[in-house]
Amino acid sequence: MTIAERFPDENIDTREAIMLATYEALCEHGYAALTIERIDNEFPKSKSLLYHHYDSKDDLLLDFLEYLLSVLPPDLAPDDVGGPNDRLESIIDYILTVEPGRADDDFLGALVELRAQAVNDPDYREHFTRSDVDFHARIENVLQDGVESGDFQDHDTDAAATFLNTLLHGALQRRVTSDEPRLDVVRDQLERYLNDVVYAEA
Amino acid sequence: MTIAERFPDENIDTREAIMLATYEALCEHGYAALTIERIDNEFPKSKSLLYHHYDSKDDLLLDFLEYLLSVLPPDLAPDDVGGPNDRLESIIDYILTVEPGRADDDFLGALVELRAQAVNDPDYREHFTRSDVDFHARIENVLQDGVESGDFQDHDTDAAATFLNTLLHGALQRRVTSDEPRLDVVRDQLERYLNDVVYAEA
Repeated sequence: MTIAERFPDENIDTREAIMLATYEALCEHGYAALTIERIDNEFPKSKSLLYHHYDSKDDLLLDFLEYLLSVLPPDLAPDDVGGPNDRLESIIDYILTVEPGRADDDFLGALVELRAQAVNDPDYREHFTRSDVDFHARIENVLQDGVESGDFQDHDTDAAATFLNTLLHGALQRRVTSDEPRLDVVRDQLERYLNDVVYAEA
Repeated sequence: MTIAERFPDENIDTREAIMLATYEALCEHGYAALTIERIDNEFPKSKSLLYHHYDSKDDLLLDFLEYLLSVLPPDLAPDDVGGPNDRLESIIDYILTVEPGRADDDFLGALVELRAQAVNDPDYREHFTRSDVDFHARIENVLQDGVESGDFQDHDTDAAATFLNTLLHGALQRRVTSDEPRLDVVRDQLERYLNDVVYAEA
């Protein structure tokens, strides 16, 4: 399921329509080349609306990032994907599996550009500090379910979620900024960690 | 040893002086707010020189990134730091240990901003693909020395270096874009991986 498919597609209100236009403009232009005008071009309603709602491109993008958190499912995986093992794999594969031409790749690139704004912009930093906590909770949720079901060993789920979160951020960054991220190798080594720390012994 | 201390400080030629000025302007302003004029302000020699050498800010920054690779020591650790265990720890600690007010922190932030340019700029992408290979080789060099000396177990040093490289990129990115990167927790979990895959059994 791609990010775009998470957005509501019927009876959408004005904010949702703006969010969808922002998503599409980000995928098309990336962060640096993005302007409010370019988002406006993706937006079917009245032109002046965007300028009325938002002071600047970054003001709009921060609202967009907030909205994004609200449309992601609680554990980042579709509910029907199966047990804790499958749900954990689904999170990991989303970042570590490369499929040429995947719909979300342009968006993930823009997300890494947006995150880089947090180096110097306190509003972006506040957002990404909070979204890390959110992403962490979604991963830990799956780990805790796995401990309860007996699929995972009793382990420090908070520490493991922190480690996974950090590794996946590195993999995502390399995925969109390098021609040779070698994510299949990362996946194999991560399996070593998961076998040692997370998965229950067979 | 900070990055700045890697730069030659005596009898420097024009390019080296430009590189030092670029480093200082990057630390002060970050990437987004950087202009050739601001680099020029850090540069003690004639104003027109910078414009003569470089077509654009990015042209200069790409030359700077290239220069940076050339001044880093072969395994990223000072030669006198000790055996493979200490050298590996020194690489890991550089990214995972937080010391408030550390001299390199502003620079590491700028580096993450520069890397984000690789999402859409082929020249940056080419550089960071290559610098990843370079960073990988520096890590693998330490791992291979450790296997030879018996400090590390016989393991797939290429795979372990890929994994470490990816994790450290994630940690660096979170370090400069979040207020709660929790790198001490990452360090503990990494130790689990290293005990399992890299370190020789005691």
